[in-house]
Amino acid sequence: VARPILFLTDYGLGDEFVGVCHAVIARLAPDARVIDLTHGVPAGNVLAGALALESAVPYAPPHAVFLAVVDPGVGTERRAVAVEAGDAALVGPDNGLLDPAVRRLGGGRRAVTMDPSLVSPGPVSATFHGRDVFAPAAAILARGGSLDELGTDLDPASLGRATIPQPSVSPGRLEATVIGIDRFGNVRLGARPTDLDRAGLRGSISLAGIRDPVQRIRTFGDLEPEGVGILEDSSGWLALVRNGSSAAEALGLAPYDRVTLDVERRPVG
Amino acid sequence: VARPILFLTDYGLGDEFVGVCHAVIARLAPDARVIDLTHGVPAGNVLAGALALESAVPYAPPHAVFLAVVDPGVGTERRAVAVEAGDAALVGPDNGLLDPAVRRLGGGRRAVTMDPSLVSPGPVSATFHGRDVFAPAAAILARGGSLDELGTDLDPASLGRATIPQPSVSPGRLEATVIGIDRFGNVRLGARPTDLDRAGLRGSISLAGIRDPVQRIRTFGDLEPEGVGILEDSSGWLALVRNGSSAAEALGLAPYDRVTLDVERRPVG
Amino acid sequence: VARPILFLTDYGLGDEFVGVCHAVIARLAPDARVIDLTHGVPAGNVLAGALALESAVPYAPPHAVFLAVVDPGVGTERRAVAVEAGDAALVGPDNGLLDPAVRRLGGGRRAVTMDPSLVSPGPVSATFHGRDVFAPAAAILARGGSLDELGTDLDPASLGRATIPQPSVSPGRLEATVIGIDRFGNVRLGARPTDLDRAGLRGSISLAGIRDPVQRIRTFGDLEPEGVGILEDSSGWLALVRNGSSAAEALGLAPYDRVTLDVERRPVG
Repeated sequence: VARPILFLTDYGLGDEFVGVCHAVIARLAPDARVIDLTHGVPAGNVLAGALALESAVPYAPPHAVFLAVVDPGVGTERRAVAVEAGDAALVGPDNGLLDPAVRRLGGGRRAVTMDPSLVSPGPVSATFHGRDVFAPAAAILARGGSLDELGTDLDPASLGRATIPQPSVSPGRLEATVIGIDRFGNVRLGARPTDLDRAGLRGSISLAGIRDPVQRIRTFGDLEPEGVGILEDSSGWLALVRNGSSAAEALGLAPYDRVTLDVERRPVG
Repeated sequence: VARPILFLTDYGLGDEFVGVCHAVIARLAPDARVIDLTHGVPAGNVLAGALALESAVPYAPPHAVFLAVVDPGVGTERRAVAVEAGDAALVGPDNGLLDPAVRRLGGGRRAVTMDPSLVSPGPVSATFHGRDVFAPAAAILARGGSLDELGTDLDPASLGRATIPQPSVSPGRLEATVIGIDRFGNVRLGARPTDLDRAGLRGSISLAGIRDPVQRIRTFGDLEPEGVGILEDSSGWLALVRNGSSAAEALGLAPYDRVTLDVERRPVG
Repeated sequence: VARPILFLTDYGLGDEFVGVCHAVIARLAPDARVIDLTHGVPAGNVLAGALALESAVPYAPPHAVFLAVVDPGVGTERRAVAVEAGDAALVGPDNGLLDPAVRRLGGGRRAVTMDPSLVSPGPVSATFHGRDVFAPAAAILARGGSLDELGTDLDPASLGRATIPQPSVSPGRLEATVIGIDRFGNVRLGARPTDLDRAGLRGSISLAGIRDPVQRIRTFGDLEPEGVGILEDSSGWLALVRNGSSAAEALGLAPYDRVTLDVERRPVG
């Protein structure tokens, strides 16, 4: 039985790039099921891709092959790698894209630098390694191949790391960075519920620049129509949300913005 | 043989939400074919989702499982339900999303309120029941499970209803509400060709606020380049269209706008 | 074994149109794998669809059925056709959409005008032949059917042609038309690297209206952050690119714009 492939890129769906990669896989591993995790990673945003990939790890089918391509360095000296971690394999550029997923899977057991001439069934372009290198490599693994067929060993400890912005916690205050905004305008912060707890922020919270307090809530429906809340999102991150509308728009927040959450001080008088 | 799953949400494809649901299904029902009906339902728009789901009913493969999630009330007291209708099953929130499809299938024969702890293979988040409740439930049905495995019976007559704006018909006049605009700018009205007939509107029709008459046509190519037409669309609704450009833009129409169609009165003189 | 279907349209993914076509195929050819090449072809843009389809030809699995629908003439007298070329079959409107792919496959060996009443399992709408004619026809071929089941023979030489804007080459100068812009803002020109060679444009090149020279490069990473380059893209066309940002935006270029590339003349003094 072929291993399932979980496929993520920043190619978008407006061009034929993703479809051509599917075609390449269908040629080499006709029995492999391919699941599109998303192809909407913002162009060139390795961190966003890395976090989306990591979010899928706990839900992946057994023996999955993760195929991830957010690759601004395509055609340069950056390494193309394949990694074994847990019961999964991961294929992609060595720019940190795979790192959080590899860690979530328990760390890399083995890794190779891929040799495009070994992997590719045809000529290798300078600009589309998704089609010419990464998709073929994932297909080889999906049909039962091993890392030996893809290239030469490298030390898994040398794999590129992702840089996730860290929160700053002090008594009564949490500073964190916006690491993502979803379709609904929910604002994901680079911080966890435990960070809020450590800062002692429990009930009503003050968000710098916002008049009304932010409520610590469990789900959208706990909020009044105009309220802003903070909750644990479905991947375990903190997120600023509204009920039925976009928190990002209401708060004027964009990725990489830094936000400060304080113990609310009710105005005197 | 596994039942095919027809999957519709308002999650969009920019995030990994849809892909993670596919992964969950692949774990629980590896043989089930999953067809993405659309994930572009406008965020939180239950009516738009309900109409898209209904449109697919006549074309679904036998024994299909409809998995539909447009769920602004996620994590609140709203019920999560599974329904048997015709040879199909439907899974989703009980907010009217399933209603038109259930009716098109001949009405609900049996329904259950789903118990997340029965359905979910893991912890249940407060904000992503697509992943934690609905996708697992659809997978259980797809692999041959019955409603008994999902929860406790409820009266199908108590299921939530969709509210489709109704037309108003009088001699020489039809008033209707815009219920959808597609990628091509075609403007779907909450009215049927028979409503036009009942109003006695056959040849040239006058649309309030528009100078030139609206032609009653069969397809786009029947129109002159700058003309506006009204036709029966592929789901049986009336639609205002242009030939090769957006009627919504030309007419300045948006969902929920009310439009008035009259017998054309040619200007005197 | 069913033939794989490669599916391309301009329907977008915001509506249920693509999903319903998938459902139709699943009814008629439940074993056929369907690969979505793209559904993001700009609405009604036959040339863009034709080029995307052609790009996929070298990567298609054996015995593929190409199902392509960019069909502004739906419901008019335009022919619906099916073509055999190489080991593939192609289904779509006869408006030039299939032409470049058919040529890349070695030319049409046989073709038929499809008879909707033969092909469709139900009523045929006037506006959605993707669902009612083209998808059923592709499914019939995928499950092993022949062109005989679809309609009556026509002369393959009479099939509609695509009009790809041609470059103009003279010593020291290349004029070409923008034939596509991808998600990353790369600007595809209707010209090949050999055209640059024939014009004698090798090192630094001058692009009319742009101050800095355009570098002839191999991949994005060869450029300085603010530089503009020209390279052979992954489908063999010339493309104007930047490194990590949109060339289309930086250069103010849109599809069908004409650009002039000259031997760079360094300013005197």
